[in-house]
Amino acid sequence: MRGVDTGHWGQNLTTPELYGKPIPLVCTPLVGCSSDQILAELAVVLAKRPDILEWRVDFFERVAHVDEVIGLAETIKKEAGNVRLLFTRRCAREGGQKIVLSEDDVVALYQTMCDSRQIDLIDFEMGNDPAHIALVREAAKANGIKLVLSFHNFSCTPGLETLDQRFLQAVQMGADIAKVAVMPRNMDDVLTLLTATLCASQKLPIPLIGLSMGSYGAITRLFGWAFGSAMTYAVGSDSSAPGQIPIEDMKTVLEILHRSMGT
Amino acid sequence: MRGVDTGHWGQNLTTPELYGKPIPLVCTPLVGCSSDQILAELAVVLAKRPDILEWRVDFFERVAHVDEVIGLAETIKKEAGNVRLLFTRRCAREGGQKIVLSEDDVVALYQTMCDSRQIDLIDFEMGNDPAHIALVREAAKANGIKLVLSFHNFSCTPGLETLDQRFLQAVQMGADIAKVAVMPRNMDDVLTLLTATLCASQKLPIPLIGLSMGSYGAITRLFGWAFGSAMTYAVGSDSSAPGQIPIEDMKTVLEILHRSMGT
Repeated sequence: MRGVDTGHWGQNLTTPELYGKPIPLVCTPLVGCSSDQILAELAVVLAKRPDILEWRVDFFERVAHVDEVIGLAETIKKEAGNVRLLFTRRCAREGGQKIVLSEDDVVALYQTMCDSRQIDLIDFEMGNDPAHIALVREAAKANGIKLVLSFHNFSCTPGLETLDQRFLQAVQMGADIAKVAVMPRNMDDVLTLLTATLCASQKLPIPLIGLSMGSYGAITRLFGWAFGSAMTYAVGSDSSAPGQIPIEDMKTVLEILHRSMGT
Repeated sequence: MRGVDTGHWGQNLTTPELYGKPIPLVCTPLVGCSSDQILAELAVVLAKRPDILEWRVDFFERVAHVDEVIGLAETIKKEAGNVRLLFTRRCAREGGQKIVLSEDDVVALYQTMCDSRQIDLIDFEMGNDPAHIALVREAAKANGIKLVLSFHNFSCTPGLETLDQRFLQAVQMGADIAKVAVMPRNMDDVLTLLTATLCASQKLPIPLIGLSMGSYGAITRLFGWAFGSAMTYAVGSDSSAPGQIPIEDMKTVLEILHRSMGT
């Protein structure tokens, strides 16, 4: 019964806010350093038919050249057709690459990107300066771009209460989508993340993404949707985080799961 | 690192008690009513290479004829080669077929089957008369046959404390393997079963099987092993419980999971 709210699942199995597609949407990162690398990566990735492309612009060596960033986004958008484009500068504090831009520069870049309307979604860390978050939110809303507010912890999995708060905080800060990605040290941590995700999906009014990274967490990339995670990240060409699974494997497992679960 | 105790997983990824194979072992039921049906099913199932065959003798219309049961077990055992044979009369109270035998007759059948040494494992419900359980345990131990003590609930998932007790009870009653299979009504119930399984696998000295049935629980058949469930049931020819997944799909997913998790 894809496409309807089954009720019993505790969450919608489609997210009208996310293009009405059955969950999980599969998002594949672009992590090239140069235009040439990114375009080569794009060709490989598009052939594998993700739902969303995430351009991790913190990997792009020309990130300080706004015109080049916009120009490349235009090219990606054109090639991508109806595959949505998520634009992300992941900050170094939350696992991204170090870049030369100041936080003010990053906010200006986000505003320019939103105004260009070459992107469909934008990801900004909820741990950033609230004034910066407000500016990014305003630019996104003004241009019909969905705002992902994200929280990452690459060293551990905080307790259930903290995870609950992170999901809630994203809603309170005006996110269209809340993302929590954490590192488990054992399978108990994986259960904590799944419990927090399921609980948040039953309570909160927006789609959310909950995932455990690394080898212990790999299963959440495959099965997290059954616990309310609307989107998952899969490798098209090169990985952007530990534990990511090739998109072909992801699609094989999802097909078997949906068949087994009658979803 | 299959084959070693990784420690961090909270449980062994192999169970020396279960033939030293990496977990999960895949068990496929035989549910034919007649010898001919069972032998046809056996040929189909063996081609798909399960680790264990479970002969659900409560489906066998000639179950009251002990000589025929032993003769058929001999044939199955011979055909099965090094695939282990699990012998199960599932009682009607826990989801099995109604049969003409009294409980005393069933115990006598179990004793005869153990003495015949045509089987490798035997499954008996832990909810049976303790005197009967003692007799079955004695017959199994005397013949080097592993005893699975099982608990099933086809209508709901009891609370965490009850599930913990069921796993512990199997140990206290002398099981070689403890099995708990319950029906979830939502994904919270699935998390309860996974939590109980992980917890028990960290505390108890024997391999255990924890699974959620039906469509919500289907995912536990695929990734319950990561939470300490040593064995999973997959369909070779015909299903014996709701939510079972075809063995080919099971093997595809397990291969992807083990690769993704580095196990």
